[in-house]
Amino acid sequence: MSLDRVIIDELVLNLNPLQTAGRTSAETRKAVTRFADGYSVCDRCNGVLHDIEKPDICGFVKQLADFLGIDRAATTMGAREGKFAVFHSVAQPGDTVVVDGNAHYTTHVAAQRAGLNVIKTNHSGYPEYEITPESYALTLDQCKTETGKPAAIALLTHVDGNYGNLTDAAAIAKVCHDAGVPIVLNTAYSSGRMPINARELGIDFIVCSGHKSFAACGPIGIIGANGEWADRLFRLSPTHQNKNIELLGCTARGANIVSLIAAFPEVKKRVLRWDEEVAKAQRFTAAMEALSDNPGDIMQIGMRPKHHDLIRLETQLFHEIGENHRKRGYYLSSELGDRGIAGLKPGQTKWFKISTYGFSDTQLDYIINAFTEIAALRF
Amino acid sequence: MSLDRVIIDELVLNLNPLQTAGRTSAETRKAVTRFADGYSVCDRCNGVLHDIEKPDICGFVKQLADFLGIDRAATTMGAREGKFAVFHSVAQPGDTVVVDGNAHYTTHVAAQRAGLNVIKTNHSGYPEYEITPESYALTLDQCKTETGKPAAIALLTHVDGNYGNLTDAAAIAKVCHDAGVPIVLNTAYSSGRMPINARELGIDFIVCSGHKSFAACGPIGIIGANGEWADRLFRLSPTHQNKNIELLGCTARGANIVSLIAAFPEVKKRVLRWDEEVAKAQRFTAAMEALSDNPGDIMQIGMRPKHHDLIRLETQLFHEIGENHRKRGYYLSSELGDRGIAGLKPGQTKWFKISTYGFSDTQLDYIINAFTEIAALRF
Repeated sequence: MSLDRVIIDELVLNLNPLQTAGRTSAETRKAVTRFADGYSVCDRCNGVLHDIEKPDICGFVKQLADFLGIDRAATTMGAREGKFAVFHSVAQPGDTVVVDGNAHYTTHVAAQRAGLNVIKTNHSGYPEYEITPESYALTLDQCKTETGKPAAIALLTHVDGNYGNLTDAAAIAKVCHDAGVPIVLNTAYSSGRMPINARELGIDFIVCSGHKSFAACGPIGIIGANGEWADRLFRLSPTHQNKNIELLGCTARGANIVSLIAAFPEVKKRVLRWDEEVAKAQRFTAAMEALSDNPGDIMQIGMRPKHHDLIRLETQLFHEIGENHRKRGYYLSSELGDRGIAGLKPGQTKWFKISTYGFSDTQLDYIINAFTEIAALRF
Repeated sequence: MSLDRVIIDELVLNLNPLQTAGRTSAETRKAVTRFADGYSVCDRCNGVLHDIEKPDICGFVKQLADFLGIDRAATTMGAREGKFAVFHSVAQPGDTVVVDGNAHYTTHVAAQRAGLNVIKTNHSGYPEYEITPESYALTLDQCKTETGKPAAIALLTHVDGNYGNLTDAAAIAKVCHDAGVPIVLNTAYSSGRMPINARELGIDFIVCSGHKSFAACGPIGIIGANGEWADRLFRLSPTHQNKNIELLGCTARGANIVSLIAAFPEVKKRVLRWDEEVAKAQRFTAAMEALSDNPGDIMQIGMRPKHHDLIRLETQLFHEIGENHRKRGYYLSSELGDRGIAGLKPGQTKWFKISTYGFSDTQLDYIINAFTEIAALRF
C-alpha cells in the first residue's frame, strides 16, 4: 500500500488522542482566516457576545443547547475553564468536590483554583480502572462523614484521557442526586464525538472541549446547565446589565467561535456515526493484540471491550525491540515517522495511547500494517 | 481621490477602536491556518504550554517579559481574564479593590467574579474625564476609613476605552505603593501600540490584550508580574507539579498563541513609531474640529491634546443633518459605508469613538475627506 495514496489529504496520520477529533476541515480553516483579525466578531455587537446576530452566535448557542440536551449553553475557552466556572459558581472556598479517580489534572487544578478540597473515588485498579456508581456512593458517604456535610458538587469524567473508559453517567448522576449533590459531566472526550443528551443522563452541568472533540480551532469549549443551575452559572452582574459574571461578559470573542460554528454541521452528523468509530477502535485493538501469541506482549489497558477511540496499550513487544535497537526507545516513533505516522512520544515504548478517531478503514489498515512491520523487527 | 486606490489592501477602513490595532498581517493569518487544528501546538508538549520549544512558546514568553519590562509573563485568553487572575491571586472575597473612574466594565465584572468590593476614584468630569494621582490618594484613603484596612489591590486603566485618556501610571503607582497597595495596570489599549516598561512605571502587575493591541488572532492576552508578586500570580498546584493554578495548567493552547508569536516582530517595531500615531490622532482631531466654525458642532471629549489614537467626538453637526435626512440617524454610517468606511454604530450621530491607529496618511486624508463631504450635507 503506498504511503502517498493513503495520506493524500493529510500530510501525517496523527494518532495522538488530543488531536484526532480536533482536526479542522478546509471550511473551518477558511472561516478562521476570514475572522482572524483581533475582535472581528464584535463589529455588530450590542454588548453581549452570545446575542450577536451576525455572525449568528445567538442562534448557534441555542443550537448547541439543543445538541447537548441542556437548557442553556455558552462558549468558554475550553473544558478546564468550564470546570472552574461551574465549581466557582456552585461551591464556596473550603467546600468539597468529589471527582472520579480517573479525573484529568485540570479537574484537580480547577478545583484548587476555586479553593475546594478534592476527594477522589476509587477505580477498580489495574488493568481496567473502572469507575462505578458504587464508588461514587461510597465517596459521597465518606465526604459527609469526614466533613459533616454533603459534597458541594460532584464531577464525573465521562470518558477519561488515560484509558478511554466510558462511564455510566446516568447511574452515577442518580447516585449523586440521591445524596443531594449536583453533578457536572466533563465530556471533553465524548461530546462532539458521540451523541450526548444531558437531560436524558440526568446531569446538572456539562463541560465540553471544542478543540479536542468538536473539530474546532481552539481554544474553545462549551458549558451548559439544566434547570435552576443555569441561573446560578449564568448569573448577571449587579452593576452591568446583561453581563455574565462567570463569563466575564464575553468569552470566545474571536476566530475560535467562528471555527466552532463552521465545524458544527459536520459534528452533528459525525456523532451519529459513533458506532462505526467504536467498531474501528475494537478492530484496531484486536489487531494490535494479535501481533503476538503471548498475551503479555501487547495488552489493552482499561475496560474491555473498547467503547471509545482512545486506546491505551501496554507494549512489552515494542519495548523489547528497543532494548536491542541502535536508536534505543526512539526507534518506534522514528519507524512510525518514516511511514508518515505521528503522535507517539519519542522514546516511549512500554506503553502508549492512541486514538483511531476519524481515520478511514484504509488509513486504519495502513496504521495496523505499520505496527505489524515494526513488530517484525523483533525477529 | 479614488476609493479603490486608498483601500487597495483592505476592503474596508474600519475605524472601530476595538479593531484598528488588532488587524492581522498576512503572515499572522498564514500561521493561524497552519495551526488551526484543535490542540495543534501541543504535539511536542511535555506538560506545560509555556515550556513548549516547538513552536518556541518558551522563548516567546521570555521575550514578552522583556518587551513589557516585567519579571515574568504568561499568556491568558485576554485582558479581562488577566484581571480576574490577578484579583483572584492577590485578594480574598470581601476585600476591596480601588479602580479608576474610567475603568472598563470587565474590570468591574472581574472584581465581582472574585468576590471583591469595588471603589471607584473620581475623574475630573466633563469634558476631560481626567484620572489623577490625587484621585487615587483620596480613594485609597476613603477605602481605609470605610473598611478599616488598605485596599487589597488597585487597578489603573492605562488608557481607557471611552475617551482614550493616557494616565500617569508612574505617579499613580507611587501613590498606591505609598498607601501599601499593589497596583495592576490594564494596558489593553496601550501595550502593543506604545512602548511600556512595567519596571520603569513601578507597577506590580500588567495585563494586555493580544486581539485588541498586538495584531493577534484572539482571544489572547498577556499577564505579567514583578518581584514577589510573580510567585503569587504563578503559584503551582500542590498536587500536580509544574501546573499553574491560576492558569489552569495551560491557557492559550491553540492558533491564538501562534498568531501572537507571528505578530510580535512587527509589534516590537510599531511601538517605536508611537509618536507618529499620536501626531496622526492630533491631526485627525484638529481636522474634525475644523469642520465647523462653531466649536459646539464638533468637539473632542477627553484630555487635550490627544495622546492616543482612540478619539471621542461630540458631533452635534452630524446629529443635525440626521434630523432632516430621510434615513434619519442611519445616514451617517450609510454615507461612510458608501465610501468604504466602517466601524460607527448604525444610527449613532450625537457622538462617536474612532481610532486612527495604523492608517496611512493617505488613508487618513481619505477619511477626513469623507467626513468633510458628509458635513457639507448640512447646507
